[in-house]
Amino acid sequence: MQDILIPGAASLLALGFVAYLAMDVLKKNPGNAKMVEISKAVQAGAKAFLRREYIYVAGFVGVIAILIAAAPIFSSVALNWQTSIAFIAGGIASAIAGYIGMSIATRANSRTTQGAVDGGLKGALGVAVSGGAVMGMSVVGVSLLGLCIVYAAFNGDPIIVNGYAMGASLVALFARSGGGIFTKGADMGADLVGKVEAGIPEDDPRNPAVIADNVGDNVGDVAGLGADLLESYVEAMIAAMAIAAGMGMLAAEQSRVLVLLPLNIASIGIIASILGIIFVKATGRGNPQGALMGGLYVSAGLTALGSYFLFKQQGVAYETYDAMGPFWATIAGVVSGVIIGFTSEYYTSSKYKPVKNLADESQSGPAITVTGGIALGMASTAVPIIVLAIALMVSYDFAGIYGVAMASLGMLATTGMVVSVDSYGPIADNAGGIAEMAHLDPGVRKITDSLDSVGNTTAAIGKGFAIGSAAFAAMGLIVAYMQSVKLQSADLKEPHVLAGILIGGMLPFFFSSMLFKAVSKAAFKMIAEVRRQFREIPGLREGKAMPDSAKCVDISTIGAINGMLLPGAVAILAPVVTGLALGPEALAGLLLGSLVSGVMLGIQMANSGGAMDNAKKYVEEGHFGGKGSETHKATVIGDTVGDPLKDTVGPSINIFIKLMAVISLVLAPIFM
Amino acid sequence: MQDILIPGAASLLALGFVAYLAMDVLKKNPGNAKMVEISKAVQAGAKAFLRREYIYVAGFVGVIAILIAAAPIFSSVALNWQTSIAFIAGGIASAIAGYIGMSIATRANSRTTQGAVDGGLKGALGVAVSGGAVMGMSVVGVSLLGLCIVYAAFNGDPIIVNGYAMGASLVALFARSGGGIFTKGADMGADLVGKVEAGIPEDDPRNPAVIADNVGDNVGDVAGLGADLLESYVEAMIAAMAIAAGMGMLAAEQSRVLVLLPLNIASIGIIASILGIIFVKATGRGNPQGALMGGLYVSAGLTALGSYFLFKQQGVAYETYDAMGPFWATIAGVVSGVIIGFTSEYYTSSKYKPVKNLADESQSGPAITVTGGIALGMASTAVPIIVLAIALMVSYDFAGIYGVAMASLGMLATTGMVVSVDSYGPIADNAGGIAEMAHLDPGVRKITDSLDSVGNTTAAIGKGFAIGSAAFAAMGLIVAYMQSVKLQSADLKEPHVLAGILIGGMLPFFFSSMLFKAVSKAAFKMIAEVRRQFREIPGLREGKAMPDSAKCVDISTIGAINGMLLPGAVAILAPVVTGLALGPEALAGLLLGSLVSGVMLGIQMANSGGAMDNAKKYVEEGHFGGKGSETHKATVIGDTVGDPLKDTVGPSINIFIKLMAVISLVLAPIFM
Repeated sequence: MQDILIPGAASLLALGFVAYLAMDVLKKNPGNAKMVEISKAVQAGAKAFLRREYIYVAGFVGVIAILIAAAPIFSSVALNWQTSIAFIAGGIASAIAGYIGMSIATRANSRTTQGAVDGGLKGALGVAVSGGAVMGMSVVGVSLLGLCIVYAAFNGDPIIVNGYAMGASLVALFARSGGGIFTKGADMGADLVGKVEAGIPEDDPRNPAVIADNVGDNVGDVAGLGADLLESYVEAMIAAMAIAAGMGMLAAEQSRVLVLLPLNIASIGIIASILGIIFVKATGRGNPQGALMGGLYVSAGLTALGSYFLFKQQGVAYETYDAMGPFWATIAGVVSGVIIGFTSEYYTSSKYKPVKNLADESQSGPAITVTGGIALGMASTAVPIIVLAIALMVSYDFAGIYGVAMASLGMLATTGMVVSVDSYGPIADNAGGIAEMAHLDPGVRKITDSLDSVGNTTAAIGKGFAIGSAAFAAMGLIVAYMQSVKLQSADLKEPHVLAGILIGGMLPFFFSSMLFKAVSKAAFKMIAEVRRQFREIPGLREGKAMPDSAKCVDISTIGAINGMLLPGAVAILAPVVTGLALGPEALAGLLLGSLVSGVMLGIQMANSGGAMDNAKKYVEEGHFGGKGSETHKATVIGDTVGDPLKDTVGPSINIFIKLMAVISLVLAPIFM
Repeated sequence: MQDILIPGAASLLALGFVAYLAMDVLKKNPGNAKMVEISKAVQAGAKAFLRREYIYVAGFVGVIAILIAAAPIFSSVALNWQTSIAFIAGGIASAIAGYIGMSIATRANSRTTQGAVDGGLKGALGVAVSGGAVMGMSVVGVSLLGLCIVYAAFNGDPIIVNGYAMGASLVALFARSGGGIFTKGADMGADLVGKVEAGIPEDDPRNPAVIADNVGDNVGDVAGLGADLLESYVEAMIAAMAIAAGMGMLAAEQSRVLVLLPLNIASIGIIASILGIIFVKATGRGNPQGALMGGLYVSAGLTALGSYFLFKQQGVAYETYDAMGPFWATIAGVVSGVIIGFTSEYYTSSKYKPVKNLADESQSGPAITVTGGIALGMASTAVPIIVLAIALMVSYDFAGIYGVAMASLGMLATTGMVVSVDSYGPIADNAGGIAEMAHLDPGVRKITDSLDSVGNTTAAIGKGFAIGSAAFAAMGLIVAYMQSVKLQSADLKEPHVLAGILIGGMLPFFFSSMLFKAVSKAAFKMIAEVRRQFREIPGLREGKAMPDSAKCVDISTIGAINGMLLPGAVAILAPVVTGLALGPEALAGLLLGSLVSGVMLGIQMANSGGAMDNAKKYVEEGHFGGKGSETHKATVIGDTVGDPLKDTVGPSINIFIKLMAVISLVLAPIFM
């Protein structure tokens, strides 16, 4: 118990802060009756989706938990029912965090709109930031608390504790892919029929799919992103702990310190994130962009500083490494996270050349927009990968494979802050939609739009961060897996390893194709439904009748759930089948192959999609012909191509890679 | 000399057959004055492009040759001027084969048209097949002859002979990427201004870019593809020879047999290809599709049969492997080549569900066409990769790493036949263009169109084959490289290896982005020029004045050459810098990483592009609204996105991977 005193306290502190922030949001005025009605519709839709998603996920989790618990019956492997418990706990932690964050985010939307009415920019920003921070701090608070409990309950046995990460990972996959399919199916359906066919503007209350679209922003960008980073966060800690526990030739006390350091760094990160959020709330009067970026810097800087003193006090020398070695590895992670985030911004913000060029080229038509967008995303892989490769080598040089895991943790210690800043975006986006639907003064929409545009930048940084950290977390897990199955080496010259790498490299492509299809399918159904409503509900087009929004939410929910099952099954079965059929070396190859192609696709898709979105916005601001021009049409097509790339497929690949790695780590005893 | 008696004779036989086929083409009637004029314009354009390309390539080759020859001065490495000579010889062999094939292909075009006028389907098919076979048999004849000479001149020293493959590879990269940029820049320019803006049909003689477009078909699809497969062919032989030479603990005579077996299998493949071509010419009266596919089967079957007797007679047992082991490995290669080819056909032919579905989905607009096309290409990676992985493990099981190289050779022994069938397509395509431009009877165009549509299928098979064989050739080279630098193992747990894999995985993405940009740039310049000519040449639009086609050819040539230099430099520098800075293990990782992501991208792009092209054709046949419908417009945009994917970027990635691998193999002594 004493071991987890600090992280336990830090997680409770985070949850206390969550309670404070939630109160802060809920005590605000939710606006007029119309606004409340819309907000309630979004809340109900989001809740209905989460409930159904969790039922299916619970089924998956249950079956796998039983299989893990039953494994020792069929073979003499060192898995046991405790791993099952930890696994279930990880799943529950992720679900709880998602539920809390989403409940508040969907309540913060109309309050942000009303905040803009009452208090202008400052009023709106305060609510949106608090709402986002509920998600951010829930992610770190709930997951760290759960991990502490599991750790204490099972005396830190890594084989058991690893199960916790697997639970978080499985829920994340479904949250991200399901949420992504939901949001893009609804979005494409709403746009293709509403804007294009019916000729009504975006966020128009007559469009039956608009509520579903707003629900989608929450389930995809708030709950989905939260679950994604929660997973990376947990995995970074667990990989470092597993590696520390597996290092031979250490005194028991030394080993204990190295195992607990990740939890303590996470604790520092929590405090730094809380201070970062306070910083944003205190300074974000006139310049929300500056405040949010400042908050990110503050929390990263404080984490680095705090870690320095932590290592000075607790660090132990091991193997050939200095006591401060892991500190420098941690710093390598922090720095590379920042660089990767900013590369994303460079490639996706209309402030810089790439997006401006893309908008310019779009004058030659949509085909050029799309190939240009794809090319831009491909080019954007270079810097992050080189940075990752350097961070990998540097962190290894300083502290061995434990250092690699610590770098990953360095990147992820400020998860609370990153998720807060990221979840703020969809709240601001929703707030704008509500202003539109409730026919508020255009000045209100202007305020929410300015918040939303800042949200786009922070979202890009968040996505870059999510991918970079996923890559690092996966590397940590792969190394921990190889240590776990006692692989002396996985030699590239071995044909089984090579075959594993090839198959692994193929999987993210195959997985992506399934998600693309699921999005199209969901969009097709939505298109048919929206058309039906416009046809069958008299007076809808004229604004005299209400659309059946609930039906649209339902369609998206079903589409999302049907679409996420098959990719989920592939993610679970691929490592299991490979490990059993081709052996642990081939599985190591598979994990690495999936990491290599998956990270590239993840970065490419996120940045291609972000750039095409912002190229459209740039044209809409009046460049190259502005709204309604041929150039604008080209960028709208580009944006529609880019949307599933950046919001469904790309982010799901992160989790796909991590899930396969963590499954391999947990099931390592079976493959030996 | 005695060693290379059989392959030397086989290569001379191939060249004799080339001479016979060339005479067969040239003695045909080239058509009326207008047809001859157009054909001559294409010939002149193609020749001008090749000449300029070769000048730049010669510069690259020269500099590298000097560096290799000078290497021993700066360090005590075992490279020498002989390697430079072999390197230059490989480059020259590729250039000669490309030149011969292209000269005849550009002369066969109008003769094919005239063949349709005089002798209908049968007459046209005969000329087109002979024309394509000149390219196919030149590729194998010239390259095998050159290899025999180099082998004999330097007593088979692998360090020297490897240089031959590097020369072929370097020329291939420039031929493929330069040719690809040329053809797509011209194609997009011709289509975007001609079809869309000026409203004149495809292949209309008033369009200034039409000749350039036809030249592009030849430089991209004939010379580019030929150089690509020539490279794989040479590398498959050389990897097997290098591995055999490097195996320890063999009697000198055993080693000699294993080193020479690849050359003898290639000889069997040449004879089998000649018989295959004769089969096509003899049976291709009414059913060209059946005849061409039959020819592929005949040559594959004969190669398998011949190899069986070869191994029965010459095979030697080595290590733990049976004398017939390498035979079964060879067969694994032949079989997997066939499966991969047919997977490509399944995903890209409008006969099957994927393309039909894509056309169906296109009713929801261009964004769905593009995402659907990308998803289709991604899904299409699964079967080829699993087949490759199985072939890899099977061939290793039967015959160790030598077996892996032999599988690659099994796939490539019928290169002569595959390139023949593949080069036939662009000739038929050109013939159709000439029929159009010379205002011949529509019945003639119908015949050439039916030949062309068969060409699309064989092209898809050829592309699948090119990628599959490139993957195998690269694996062979990587293994040979690791053996060469005496890497005991390249362990995935090593951070340098991991860093290498990550950077390697990124490179095909980065390389692709450069080629995309080069194509857009070339297309933009072409668009500007075509617009200028329509504006400034009085009477052009009305058909009363001639366009300045030569100027357009010139623009494409310059665009292609400028665009290929930077990607080429990356391909050369990346392995050198990595090997020197991070060491030979990291370089092994880099090669493997590039293989993994490169093969996936290569397959995806080829099949995405092919499917989008054929979805457009399927709609044009009258489905889902037919020509001029919104669905058609959506598929036209899809096709424009797909074109550079399948004809420029995708195929260039093959060579990029192979070139980095062969450079590493040749420069292995430097990295040790």
